[in-house]
Amino acid sequence: MNEFSLIKEFFADCTRQRADVILAVGDDCALLTVPPGYELAVSIDTLVAGVHFAAEVDPAALGHKALAVGLSDLAAMGAEPAWATLALTLPEVDRTWLARFVQGLSGLAGSYGVQLVGGDTTRGPLTVTLQLHGFVSQGKALRRDGARPGDRIYVTGTLGDSGLALQARSGEIRLAQEALRYAEHRLDWPQPRVREALALRPLARAAIDISDGLAADLGHILERSGVGAVLEMESLPLSESLQSSLEPTQAWNLALGAGDDYELCVTAPAESHGPLQAALSVLGCPCTLIGTIEEKLGLRCRLQDGAPFIPKHQGYRHF
Amino acid sequence: MNEFSLIKEFFADCTRQRADVILAVGDDCALLTVPPGYELAVSIDTLVAGVHFAAEVDPAALGHKALAVGLSDLAAMGAEPAWATLALTLPEVDRTWLARFVQGLSGLAGSYGVQLVGGDTTRGPLTVTLQLHGFVSQGKALRRDGARPGDRIYVTGTLGDSGLALQARSGEIRLAQEALRYAEHRLDWPQPRVREALALRPLARAAIDISDGLAADLGHILERSGVGAVLEMESLPLSESLQSSLEPTQAWNLALGAGDDYELCVTAPAESHGPLQAALSVLGCPCTLIGTIEEKLGLRCRLQDGAPFIPKHQGYRHF
Repeated sequence: MNEFSLIKEFFADCTRQRADVILAVGDDCALLTVPPGYELAVSIDTLVAGVHFAAEVDPAALGHKALAVGLSDLAAMGAEPAWATLALTLPEVDRTWLARFVQGLSGLAGSYGVQLVGGDTTRGPLTVTLQLHGFVSQGKALRRDGARPGDRIYVTGTLGDSGLALQARSGEIRLAQEALRYAEHRLDWPQPRVREALALRPLARAAIDISDGLAADLGHILERSGVGAVLEMESLPLSESLQSSLEPTQAWNLALGAGDDYELCVTAPAESHGPLQAALSVLGCPCTLIGTIEEKLGLRCRLQDGAPFIPKHQGYRHF
Repeated sequence: MNEFSLIKEFFADCTRQRADVILAVGDDCALLTVPPGYELAVSIDTLVAGVHFAAEVDPAALGHKALAVGLSDLAAMGAEPAWATLALTLPEVDRTWLARFVQGLSGLAGSYGVQLVGGDTTRGPLTVTLQLHGFVSQGKALRRDGARPGDRIYVTGTLGDSGLALQARSGEIRLAQEALRYAEHRLDWPQPRVREALALRPLARAAIDISDGLAADLGHILERSGVGAVLEMESLPLSESLQSSLEPTQAWNLALGAGDDYELCVTAPAESHGPLQAALSVLGCPCTLIGTIEEKLGLRCRLQDGAPFIPKHQGYRHF
């Protein structure tokens, strides 16, 4: 089987045809049109077997997650998803595996109107690289450098669930069956906050997605914006599964440092508080106030009684 | 070293800042603007160590080639290069290796005004995935489906040199020193035909780049255009190195089937012959007439005496 027939068979029709795609898979390049008045937002991410996922992972979950990671990056800019390109490196052509992978990818792509417009399939160690392309109105993107002193800091959803699942898989801890199932679902089938991002974009000043852990990712906002922050530990949103499985200190450490959460961390002026809560509650997404941006540089975590809390992890290290 | 500082240190400033880049490396997405009246052309390609290149390759050549492959795809659409994104998977952080890799990449990027706008670095088996983004005036792209019966078939440069280098490296043949040096340079440092493509775009009807071998790649044009073709073996442009190293039959087989040439194959109406030759000769690039598009489906290779020639290879097989 050659590359061409592989792409044709498995990927060419895997998502619906968008009107802004002039030419998709099957030529030297895809040809695309960005609507006038919009900027193009792009993000590329790689998942490597044995590093970011186990080789025996459900291929549907892998296809889903590869796309979710990119959608989460678009969400963090407040961009509307449009197209994906896929570079897939496979040790061999396993038709059952491929069909499942495409199923996971297509399911999520369909939910957000994303069309797969191009790709490359190569032989080698199992690796998935996916680039997402989206649109954002000129000058309206949510950036990391927009936070200002006095801004409130919010996160969507709950934190630390994926870290909990990873600890359970590595044998570090044992979880009750229900907590394990919940945490693994959060790790393997993350739901990117695309609609939430579009709703909060007009209200927020800065945003990032939490893929490397809250402390590290909020740290990027602080660095790029030239500000500092205080986080209230007791305010961090934790799932029931996490709370029932760990002591608060351990739970906070996962929430701050474990990563792989694909939630959004945003900052917004104080007057946005009400509208922001309203906008996200319509979507059924919790949006929790967890701290404040300050002029004083650095990230300070503190407890209700005013005592400082020193996080154990520094966020996901890529090398 | 974390991903962020790696990108920052080695890649953030590796190419000049383009005016159409609003935000490059350092946020969740890059933010870009496509000029009005233009379509966006994108192509993604992966090079895997041990499959597409030897792990001990000169990293500068690898950086160059990763970009050249994508530029060649843009050229095949007649698109003007603009931006690149890079997903680089490395077994470890080797600063000397990385510096050389970026040197090779930047050198070629600079020649074509390409800015690296985003990327991902991950730990794992050495793999380079690069996406190129370019512009082409609305409706003016050179596609695979534009060939018409009566069109003349042309190729730029010479064919089969990379195949010759690969045969020498695998020990299949022994080459004279000069021929080896020339062939290896063609394999390791391909020069994408970007300027040539822009010059021939108004004159040609269909185009593809020859990465999988002339027979396979011209075959894609034939299939997508619903036509056939006759190729004249004695007309195939062969370098002195190739001619002096192999018998004609072996040389034609490499030219037809070996791939990795990154030359362009285009079809153009007969009346474009003069203008096409003139346009490419200004750029110092040979453009050789090698055959004709016919209504009768299929690809027929033939000798001067009218006898058919049956190619040995079927083009590069990805699996």
